[in-house]
Amino acid sequence: MRWNRISDAVIRRLPLYLRVLEEVSREEGRRLLSSQELGERAGVGPALVRKDLAWFGEFGKQGVGYEVEFLRAELRRILNLDSEIKAALVGVGSLGQAFVRYNKKRYQEDPTFNIRIAALFDNDPAKFGQKVEDLRIDPLEQLSAKVPELGLRMAIIAVPAEVAQEVCQVVYESGIKAVLNFAPTKLIVPADVHLANADLSLELQRLSYYLRDPAGQE
Amino acid sequence: MRWNRISDAVIRRLPLYLRVLEEVSREEGRRLLSSQELGERAGVGPALVRKDLAWFGEFGKQGVGYEVEFLRAELRRILNLDSEIKAALVGVGSLGQAFVRYNKKRYQEDPTFNIRIAALFDNDPAKFGQKVEDLRIDPLEQLSAKVPELGLRMAIIAVPAEVAQEVCQVVYESGIKAVLNFAPTKLIVPADVHLANADLSLELQRLSYYLRDPAGQE
Repeated sequence: MRWNRISDAVIRRLPLYLRVLEEVSREEGRRLLSSQELGERAGVGPALVRKDLAWFGEFGKQGVGYEVEFLRAELRRILNLDSEIKAALVGVGSLGQAFVRYNKKRYQEDPTFNIRIAALFDNDPAKFGQKVEDLRIDPLEQLSAKVPELGLRMAIIAVPAEVAQEVCQVVYESGIKAVLNFAPTKLIVPADVHLANADLSLELQRLSYYLRDPAGQE
Repeated sequence: MRWNRISDAVIRRLPLYLRVLEEVSREEGRRLLSSQELGERAGVGPALVRKDLAWFGEFGKQGVGYEVEFLRAELRRILNLDSEIKAALVGVGSLGQAFVRYNKKRYQEDPTFNIRIAALFDNDPAKFGQKVEDLRIDPLEQLSAKVPELGLRMAIIAVPAEVAQEVCQVVYESGIKAVLNFAPTKLIVPADVHLANADLSLELQRLSYYLRDPAGQE
């Protein structure tokens, strides 16, 4: 297997392909899908679709396309979404709470989503014992005990930027290897921990670039 | 100017550089910054920092580095963050409300952030007239009138996936050219409209890939 050498740019597109396959599998009587259509619906060129998927095996037949159910099952397996992944959310402020609700909705609506927030942590004693969507808020100190107890494998950090690095250290020292960071700051993690950025301010600032007056561009 | 040909990958890194420059400018007595340090703090290699910035002009001096205040001002100008940008938020559910609070906090804490949610829209009559952080929720039909009235230039879409494309069309028909999409679906926009994805489910699914048992990788 060459999986260790596959770039993150490829991995980023796999969930897009999976989403298209989930949609197509709900459409009646669709057994095959061309790389052309898969690409169009995922917003990726067909040659790149073929190249991305070729990293993981020979899924398509030339002139025939991909078998929808087979490729869908393979992508779910490749993304480790064939069994449920439990996540901890740290920092139960308004963004954290909203994300708990968002995640629950996604999990309920999409039977293949398979990532579920299963524990909430905060460092504010006033919040301990309170519930959000039936999940109790526990002190952050309990994280390292809860990770093996509940089988938590992912963490979502939704704390203020000033304390995010400190919280992140507690998270990776508890044995969690995948972190989604909402805090508007760059986190430092050991090499075996994977970090995804949900820094929404950066996305807004990037968009702002394109608001240049078109007349001023040339 | 070659700005039209600059890839989005370059643009994505500019807000990271700007954030580092803002931090450095708050540190006492720092007038110069090397591409080495700028890169380290932004999580980007120094050669790439120099290459990215060279698209926009000659900012650094060999062996001396970048003048912090000058480069900071230039990046703010390039990203159109030298004056305030007003955004509309469409879909005031729990995620939308949390994002209004998040944006307000960012705006207040960081005097250079400069992107402010200035109007809220929904299609639920029960919400019309209600307020979130002093902003009144208006019917979506009023968007096209409010865009010129308030000078709205950006929109944040936080509605359910099923209606996101329909809402997106209302948004771009109102004249807005930059959209941040939270809905877990791919939106189609005209070529002159820029779209940024805040699809948090995709980020979680990507992270899941890395949760493979290391022993099973080879």
